[in-house]
Amino acid sequence: MNLCILFGGKSYEHEISIVSAIALKKLLPEVKHFIFLDSNHNFYHIMAEQMQSKFFSSNAYQKAPKIYPKKNGFYVHTLFGEKPLNFPTILNLIHGGDGEDGIVASLLDFYGIPYIGPRNPACVLSYDKEFVKSFATSRGVKSLTHHVLYRNETLLSDLEFPVIIKPARLGSSLGISIAESQADLQYALDSAFEYDEKVVIEPFIDGIKEYNLAGFKGKDGMCFSFIEEPEKNKFLDFEKKYLDFSRTGNAKEAEISAELKQILQENFTKLYINAFEGALIRCDFFFKDNVCYLNEINPVPGSLANYLFKDFRAALETLLLALPKPNGIKVDYALLHQIQFAKGK
Amino acid sequence: MNLCILFGGKSYEHEISIVSAIALKKLLPEVKHFIFLDSNHNFYHIMAEQMQSKFFSSNAYQKAPKIYPKKNGFYVHTLFGEKPLNFPTILNLIHGGDGEDGIVASLLDFYGIPYIGPRNPACVLSYDKEFVKSFATSRGVKSLTHHVLYRNETLLSDLEFPVIIKPARLGSSLGISIAESQADLQYALDSAFEYDEKVVIEPFIDGIKEYNLAGFKGKDGMCFSFIEEPEKNKFLDFEKKYLDFSRTGNAKEAEISAELKQILQENFTKLYINAFEGALIRCDFFFKDNVCYLNEINPVPGSLANYLFKDFRAALETLLLALPKPNGIKVDYALLHQIQFAKGK
Repeated sequence: MNLCILFGGKSYEHEISIVSAIALKKLLPEVKHFIFLDSNHNFYHIMAEQMQSKFFSSNAYQKAPKIYPKKNGFYVHTLFGEKPLNFPTILNLIHGGDGEDGIVASLLDFYGIPYIGPRNPACVLSYDKEFVKSFATSRGVKSLTHHVLYRNETLLSDLEFPVIIKPARLGSSLGISIAESQADLQYALDSAFEYDEKVVIEPFIDGIKEYNLAGFKGKDGMCFSFIEEPEKNKFLDFEKKYLDFSRTGNAKEAEISAELKQILQENFTKLYINAFEGALIRCDFFFKDNVCYLNEINPVPGSLANYLFKDFRAALETLLLALPKPNGIKVDYALLHQIQFAKGK
Repeated sequence: MNLCILFGGKSYEHEISIVSAIALKKLLPEVKHFIFLDSNHNFYHIMAEQMQSKFFSSNAYQKAPKIYPKKNGFYVHTLFGEKPLNFPTILNLIHGGDGEDGIVASLLDFYGIPYIGPRNPACVLSYDKEFVKSFATSRGVKSLTHHVLYRNETLLSDLEFPVIIKPARLGSSLGISIAESQADLQYALDSAFEYDEKVVIEPFIDGIKEYNLAGFKGKDGMCFSFIEEPEKNKFLDFEKKYLDFSRTGNAKEAEISAELKQILQENFTKLYINAFEGALIRCDFFFKDNVCYLNEINPVPGSLANYLFKDFRAALETLLLALPKPNGIKVDYALLHQIQFAKGK
């Protein structure tokens, strides 16, 4: 497996991305090169043996070679100028801001650097918990009803409690809480507004069935992981989910009917095709009264949901062969010539 | 007015952006610095006196200094290393790909370079003619019914002719045509698929009223242009719209009721707030049977719709004072420390 893992980012999920990258390093010991994006937007070239949490939390990483993206790859300054690093294909493992909001995807596409990961439009449509619902609707996939509230706005609608309140643009359960009644509401809103100026409010349905499914499109069609029914502690709090990002053993496969499996895979496919090509994503679904609802799309899932794949390495190898090609647009100035000709100059 | 105009881009609208930048240069003679992004993704520093179409179509621009974005600004290589260029605020005038799809917005935000223009999410939501309809719906703004078709897909629905067929991700009327009947359909689809693998099909309503309105949010609230009822030649073909990008004289204000004006401004505001901050955009509306429909949002309108503003310079100056600030996210590694502590290492 020839990959270079890009992690870190300027985001609330910066540390989670480090944990996630360390987990992948354990799973893919053949990966030699890592790129760390620190929270000041500097890139560093990190070697496999440096991939330990202390190396980052102690700021030791700042002594690693600083690198930068340029046309067709990453470069490093040398005494005599600069040198291309000829890294293999990048794997975008930046969770949250930078990695899932399209910033890094745009950067890599701008410089023509090949990568595994969601492209910019896929990021924007899935990163925001409001937009992802519009997107799902446009693909014929249901999601729970919701309210959107911006900081400084007043909530006008009457809510049916309990509700779950989430920062609109954040993964990893940060800032998420449940309000059982009006009395809890303000505190829950304040917690969410700490992370984003926009929050999404949804009904909280206790005991609703939840199923997680990962997958991607390979050259010969869709490839799916097995399905997990994640453990329920009301909802995953940050510490719990944090540890979740370091999972490397196989999860327990959900015991569900072939029919339900097919429904989940069909919904996944509706969301994926013509949007997420090039990425391994995880879709989290709810299932209630025989209806499937999208909970969320993780365009860069923690440790890329390795624990849902029986052969994770083979999955990545299949995806590597199916990365989207950038559009080749040629400019010949025919129209400018035409205008100049018309003007006689 | 202290601005640096960024134009060009790797897109079918590359030449249109050059025409647009030349028009702005005429309107804002005090602007000294221009940045040209060629179709190979190289940036060049162009001086005001070089802003003539021949300079680009003859490739003379390739002798201009090559520059590149880095943290907080653009830089140029010198004999002794590199030098910051200290440009004033960038004005993103790249139409179509790169400028309106969020790539350049992401790049500028990544490097912390201030700019006038739509931010990445606003680009993605408005650049694609399918997504913009979902977005409008989520904001309570109507748009015409539509079908989406990808290359190699077969159109399953029966169409009511005439229909108008558009590449999903392109401005400037490129690849747009009207099919009066089934007989015209394949040719119209082929024309659109030349530019994009995704097309949008809408009813073509002859004689529908169309109104164009530009605006932005300043420090003290929304600022609107006057409203134009654009000339109708069935629809603007490329050459016509191309010339449109070089307009510098004031358009004719539409003679409409105060009520209609208010309706259009209200719809504009619904679309703009919490999405397009930092950008001057133009919304093109249809009006039929007393209902307002969004036709399209131009997140980087041709020559920034100067012809709709009685005082265009004052409009830009107002917008310059209201650019969004990037989020300040600090990483303190508290969680990594906690994990290390828990593990006893």
